[in-house]
Formats: sequence, C-alpha cells, structure tokens
Amino acid sequence: MLGADDQQERLKTVGWVVGFVDGEGCFSVAIQRCRVMRLGWQVFPEFVVTQGAISLSALEALQQFFRCGRIHINRRHDNHKEPLYRFCVRAVGELRKKVIPFFRENPLRTAKRRDFELFASVLDLMRVRKHLSIEGLKEIAAITVQINRQKHPLFLESSETIRQASV
Amino acid sequence: MLGADDQQERLKTVGWVVGFVDGEGCFSVAIQRCRVMRLGWQVFPEFVVTQGAISLSALEALQQFFRCGRIHINRRHDNHKEPLYRFCVRAVGELRKKVIPFFRENPLRTAKRRDFELFASVLDLMRVRKHLSIEGLKEIAAITVQINRQKHPLFLESSETIRQASV
Repeated sequence: MLGADDQQERLKTVGWVVGFVDGEGCFSVAIQRCRVMRLGWQVFPEFVVTQGAISLSALEALQQFFRCGRIHINRRHDNHKEPLYRFCVRAVGELRKKVIPFFRENPLRTAKRRDFELFASVLDLMRVRKHLSIEGLKEIAAITVQINRQKHPLFLESSETIRQASV
Repeated sequence: MLGADDQQERLKTVGWVVGFVDGEGCFSVAIQRCRVMRLGWQVFPEFVVTQGAISLSALEALQQFFRCGRIHINRRHDNHKEPLYRFCVRAVGELRKKVIPFFRENPLRTAKRRDFELFASVLDLMRVRKHLSIEGLKEIAAITVQINRQKHPLFLESSETIRQASV
C-alpha cells in the first residue's frame, strides 16, 4: 500500500499525464490499405505523444506510467532542428485495457477530450467487430474524419484513404 | 479545510497544470527598447500558454488556478485556422509570488524545466535591481538567449534586441 506522500505523488503524476496529453497528445485513427484483410482495409488506432530529443525522459515517464507502448524516432522531416521522438500505443488490447480506462477515469480538459471520446468509440466498434464489415468500416470512417482534423499528419493521410474507403 | 475527495482533485489539478505547461507553456524574457527607462531598455518576463479558441476553457482554468494573468487573442498570423488565445502573466509581482513558487514546488518534467529555472533566475536578478545597470542587463541578456531559443517568436524577436543591448 502506498504511503501518504507516495499517494500524493501518484495523484500529481496522474494529473501530469492528463495535462501533458492535453498539451502534446494525439488520438488518431487511420484506415489503411491492407491486402491481408478480407475487405482490403485495416483500421489502425494510435495514441501518440511527440517530443524533441531533449525531453525524451518525459516520454519514458509515460511509457512507465501506462506500462505499454513504444518509443521511436519520428520519421517526419519538418522544420524541427532536433530529432523528434514518439511514444505510441498501437496494440488494440493495450489501448482498451490501459489507455482508454485511464482517460475515462481522468478526463482530458481541452478539446482533445472530444478526440479521445471519438477514438474510444472506434475502439468500441472494433470490439464488436464492426471493422470487419463494409457498413461498420463506413461508420468508423465517418467518426475518424472528425478526429484531429487539422493537426495530425497521419490523420491527413488517412482522411484521404478514408474517402476512398467510403465511396 | 478540503475534504479527502477535494484534496485528491486538488492534487490532480496541480499535476494537470504542470503537465499542461510542460506541453504548452512558454517562459520568455524579452529585452525591449523603452525610452522611459533610464538605460533605454526594459526587461520583460512573461509566462504564456497558448491554445486554440476551442480549448479556451483550459486557459480559463489556468487563470483561475493561478489567480492572476490575462487571456487575450494572439496577434500572430500563422497557419492556424482557428483564433489563438494566450493566457499570460506579465506582472513581476504575480510571477514572483504565484507562478515561480508553484513551479519550484511542483517541478516541470520536460526540458521546459530548464527554461523555467533560467526565467526564475532573471526574476531573482530583477529583485536585486540588476536590470537597472548596464552590467546587470548584460547578465540578464546572457541568460535570456538560453531560454526557448527555437520555439517562441517573441523570443526570436527579443534575441535580436538583446544582441543590440549587449553590444
């Protein structure tokens, strides 16, 4: 059992994770071509936090906190002068058991909360295997276009593929 | 006195503020021309958090939390499609009594912590009136160029003026 100080520290850390994700987090869903899938499309949800190399330790703190996810160098080439790192959770089981329950219990406080709710609803639809039917895929695509419309390059890419998927 | 639930919520909010500022906050010091000042230069420290209009409520939460600062529309014209708002604390007394003690007690967890420490050291120098002598102004300018070098447009502007000031 945690002592009082540890308990206080734990609560502050919970708050820190929410605040940091409010600032830097991204919930995205891509729908990508995948020949192995029966319908030819795969739904690809991802929780990502990006930081410059100088703040890599903050991503490591997230990884330890959620006890899942990977950290790797971002492949983006943009105007950042230092290497960018991404902490990302892609495994549907981890998203469902760890990430989503955490943010349901500790809600985000910016507009990112709406992105999170949409993201969680896609995971709910995947749980009942909606992503394996054309109709369900269209339903997911309709939700996906509402998430993070402007900000995430992955999303911009996926919104293209979604348009193709939902024709 | 706070009840146990309120106390827990308070600790989470403390953590949230740290995390959100780790993500979105900016500690900057500009040194600007000011004819009224005896030396002709004014040191201008500022704590800022910027958000799109859609997350204005998060800035209002910060304002309520710190019980100081103002929120106004950002004058920047860049590629953001929604209006940007800035929560900023400029009053030296408020920075010294509210903002700096908070982040000393609840340290930032990204590289922004270093920016904060440099920022706080400028406030310390101003407390002993170093900003009113040429030598002190040079000392402050030398610290200022280390803060937020790449990220903050205000800083980029001020680094120009600092170079002039320290010649």
